[in-house]
Amino acid sequence: MASGEDDLIARYFRPLATDPGALGLIDDAALLTPSGSDIVVTTDAIVEGVHFLPSDPPDTLARKALRVNLSDLAAKGAEPAGFVLTLALREAREEWLAPFARALGEDAAAFRCPLLGGDTVSTPGPVMISVTAFGRVLPGRMIHRHGARAGDRVAVTGTIGDATLGLGLLTGRIAGDGLDASSRDFLTGHYRVPEPRNAVAIVLRDHASATMDVSDGLAGDLAKLCAASRQSAEIELAAVPLSAPAQALLASGQTRMEALVAGGDDYEILCTIPENRWDAFAAAVQGLGVRLTSIGRITAASDPPRFLDASGRPVLFERLSYSHF
Amino acid sequence: MASGEDDLIARYFRPLATDPGALGLIDDAALLTPSGSDIVVTTDAIVEGVHFLPSDPPDTLARKALRVNLSDLAAKGAEPAGFVLTLALREAREEWLAPFARALGEDAAAFRCPLLGGDTVSTPGPVMISVTAFGRVLPGRMIHRHGARAGDRVAVTGTIGDATLGLGLLTGRIAGDGLDASSRDFLTGHYRVPEPRNAVAIVLRDHASATMDVSDGLAGDLAKLCAASRQSAEIELAAVPLSAPAQALLASGQTRMEALVAGGDDYEILCTIPENRWDAFAAAVQGLGVRLTSIGRITAASDPPRFLDASGRPVLFERLSYSHF
Repeated sequence: MASGEDDLIARYFRPLATDPGALGLIDDAALLTPSGSDIVVTTDAIVEGVHFLPSDPPDTLARKALRVNLSDLAAKGAEPAGFVLTLALREAREEWLAPFARALGEDAAAFRCPLLGGDTVSTPGPVMISVTAFGRVLPGRMIHRHGARAGDRVAVTGTIGDATLGLGLLTGRIAGDGLDASSRDFLTGHYRVPEPRNAVAIVLRDHASATMDVSDGLAGDLAKLCAASRQSAEIELAAVPLSAPAQALLASGQTRMEALVAGGDDYEILCTIPENRWDAFAAAVQGLGVRLTSIGRITAASDPPRFLDASGRPVLFERLSYSHF
Repeated sequence: MASGEDDLIARYFRPLATDPGALGLIDDAALLTPSGSDIVVTTDAIVEGVHFLPSDPPDTLARKALRVNLSDLAAKGAEPAGFVLTLALREAREEWLAPFARALGEDAAAFRCPLLGGDTVSTPGPVMISVTAFGRVLPGRMIHRHGARAGDRVAVTGTIGDATLGLGLLTGRIAGDGLDASSRDFLTGHYRVPEPRNAVAIVLRDHASATMDVSDGLAGDLAKLCAASRQSAEIELAAVPLSAPAQALLASGQTRMEALVAGGDDYEILCTIPENRWDAFAAAVQGLGVRLTSIGRITAASDPPRFLDASGRPVLFERLSYSHF
């Protein structure tokens, strides 16, 4: 009776489906019990040759596919509740599936976001991994993009631009002259396995007026947040937090600030915080061991956000963010 | 500011996102308010060249992608609550996207299953449409696959085998000698646009001991239901409901019963009904204008279900259902 597809699910994914709502992956559907919460739903897919390199290891793909969705839940102030996975593969190979499933299970456990169900299909084309993830928030407490008000601080977690530099190193677009091995690993690691900021979700919920995660590039994503809030922003380019390896590549002329703020794949939190909340918010985030940097202010204007250089002059970017099509 | 991807979403999909939970498709996530219900989650993807033909029209693909998920919700006794869409396209062409989005919007309205969010990505490979759909059931009332008991009737809605015959006609595997144009359209229509049985969901909830939808072939799907319930079944092959065009192709030797019950893509409801519920259940389904046929009984055994010919002898099938890999 058992078919190849059923065997594959039983062998690699059923061991991960320990949540009661997964029903052991033997029913048509999964069951999500809201427990009095609103359910936040997010979906993000990654495609071979578009969002990841054919050479990326399967364990990093599993983590990336889940984490880009966890990052959206974090940005909305939601606690992870589970996810479903659609996996399109050319062939079912043990040496790909075993590390993929193992890493997926590890991340699902670490982020308390259990596998609830999925669909495994064959494709003649590139590998595609699509995740739909669910989070819980108290009713009415999801944080939106549209709440920013003039005067609010604009802040980001972590550092910006590491992932796009890591991709540049992997593709050879950036030579990386002068970088040691650990700096290279730091940058390529950020590209392959982002660190979603789920620990910060609950603090955001208490203080932020608007939030989103930085997935397509800080400049473009901030423009989206401002548009949703019908505001603008002024950002000090020099304040944008950069890692030491990013600073080194900038200093040696191997990248430009524009590439870092438009690069994408950061999966940091971009948020706006009312001034009277700033100190409490910053202290709470610091208490979680997460780097937080104030990079500018929301302004009452309808034009796109402006990035200012050290002398206060606006810097014009050709391209704000990554776009398909 | 607006990119190709954002334009595409704004132009084709934002008009469909009228549900408040969709947040106008301008946030990182959607919001699902459970309203005291459990949330049933199902996900099914369709891939060009695997689940559909490159020649299938985009409007039928939109309907199929949504309806295969609606069928799972119906089988679980859930009322549709919304869906998210992941669309992987080689290129963004108006003549493909416009009819796709229009048909998707029509079906979303007809089945009261609003678009809540999604992800649109480029791919160098085949078109892939992945839907994750949500349904509401009263807490604890989802119908499972594992509730069948010996003596229960086994029943199916509609007719079996039309979709696989439609696919056979479209690919030329079946010549279709003797079929008139309307019979051909009937069969190919079943392949391209299934009729999910959402109207039956509430009746199933009141009477069925176990349910699933028939997506991979009646024989294999019944085996899964029996395995989940730790029971077996005896099915009278002659009782399996066939449409007039299917009967004609069977009579002319252009198909075999085995191909019909193992074919897949039926998207009918397979259910088991305790004998003392049968009359009320059958009357209720009939009242909805849906064809219902009793095809056999659940039996207390651990071997796979048996299909019996007119003389009561078991018929052996080489292949029970469709499987990827």
